[in-house]
Amino acid sequence: MDFMQRLNAAVERNNSLLCVGLDTEAGQVRARYGLEQAQYNRRLIEATSDLVCAYKPNLAFYEAQGIDGLRALEQTLAAIPSHIVTIADAKRGDIGTTAEQYAAAWLGRFGFDAITINPYMGWDAVAPFAADPARGVFLLCLTSNPGADDFEYHGQPPLYECVAAKAAAWNTRGNLGCVVGATRAQALARVRELLGPTAPILVPGVGAQGGSLDDAVRNGLGAQQRGVVINASRSILFAGEGARWADASRAEAQRLRDAINALRV
Amino acid sequence: MDFMQRLNAAVERNNSLLCVGLDTEAGQVRARYGLEQAQYNRRLIEATSDLVCAYKPNLAFYEAQGIDGLRALEQTLAAIPSHIVTIADAKRGDIGTTAEQYAAAWLGRFGFDAITINPYMGWDAVAPFAADPARGVFLLCLTSNPGADDFEYHGQPPLYECVAAKAAAWNTRGNLGCVVGATRAQALARVRELLGPTAPILVPGVGAQGGSLDDAVRNGLGAQQRGVVINASRSILFAGEGARWADASRAEAQRLRDAINALRV
Repeated sequence: MDFMQRLNAAVERNNSLLCVGLDTEAGQVRARYGLEQAQYNRRLIEATSDLVCAYKPNLAFYEAQGIDGLRALEQTLAAIPSHIVTIADAKRGDIGTTAEQYAAAWLGRFGFDAITINPYMGWDAVAPFAADPARGVFLLCLTSNPGADDFEYHGQPPLYECVAAKAAAWNTRGNLGCVVGATRAQALARVRELLGPTAPILVPGVGAQGGSLDDAVRNGLGAQQRGVVINASRSILFAGEGARWADASRAEAQRLRDAINALRV
Repeated sequence: MDFMQRLNAAVERNNSLLCVGLDTEAGQVRARYGLEQAQYNRRLIEATSDLVCAYKPNLAFYEAQGIDGLRALEQTLAAIPSHIVTIADAKRGDIGTTAEQYAAAWLGRFGFDAITINPYMGWDAVAPFAADPARGVFLLCLTSNPGADDFEYHGQPPLYECVAAKAAAWNTRGNLGCVVGATRAQALARVRELLGPTAPILVPGVGAQGGSLDDAVRNGLGAQQRGVVINASRSILFAGEGARWADASRAEAQRLRDAINALRV
């Protein structure tokens, strides 16, 4: 099944454009909830998997735990229902022969459905990830952090517009989109215009990072009121305290999913 | 000890600006030499560690082997003499809280002396790696692959010059430099000019990728005929065949070290 078919099927089944970012800091979940990374993730997934279209583990939080972290990541992936899309937030980018190794790692061995990629090095750093139409690729375009000002707006047209334009040109298999932070709502509309109505856009930053949900959803939506994946991480992961934390996470995921759906009109 | 002191000590001790890139493809070393990744690396290190200033494992080749690959990477690092600099060719880049996790992984848990970083997301994606003056950071600036044309020359001044200029401004601890591919010798002179005479420059691409050694060394050298690290990977890793492969790798490393030194005048 093509990546977009798979993503759209997950969106329809749970009536949701919400992705939960599994940026699970091991020390924090141990201190707050007395749980290991994989245990915590499994309970969070059980509490939210009927409310999301995707989960997005950021690989940094697993690499920081070394071999134990990769094992926790494998266990986390095994706990995600097969109809939900998995996105490796990897932000990798390297020359072609090396990119093939990264693709083998994350789309092959670990079996993610999609991956985030850093576009800096250009097409040959992207191509190995996009070769299989069953797998999705999200190129970093305009990010939500303060450092985005350093290079992402460089030049005329600004660099992020060039990335979006190249992503559109490279999207011959229908599986290539962009990452645009929710704090960049105006730019998001421009990226949607450049990408066309069907390419996927991943939008992090609506929760703890403070981006406006309304603008992010309205400006990101593509054809058939979908094509945008709205990610929240910390605001859902750390919604509650104590033994009933998973209930609080579920409530926040449900609130966010419903708030997003209210904007799909 | 500061990173540059440590690097310069390794350069002096072995009279070498050569770095060997441990881009060890597991299937290939098994097929060619009947060795596992870590075994192969250990023998290569034994054969070359008096000829180099640094080793640079590209993490993709270990991630592609999953948990076994990370274990092989740990064993590889343990086999590198403590006076030789280790560079994680990671090309990571993510927002500050995530960059802290990557720094904890590679500079902390795995204990690399230095790391390569993708600058796309700007300063907060770089800062956590550069915080400790004992650790070196190499920002991707202008790379040797064909895809470099897509974005790295974008704008006026071209993006790669902006990256070099920012790297110079950010280099308040003396541990921040750039990566410039050996196929970009003219630009390398410009990057050296922007960075100043003491910042380190990592130059891959002199071997299998075909960059000119003469121009790379002459244009990259900084103060005291050093400050540049010349990396070769495949041309050394796969210099020979059969049981005496390590002798061929050593001979190629020696030839390259001496050829580099002949240009330090």
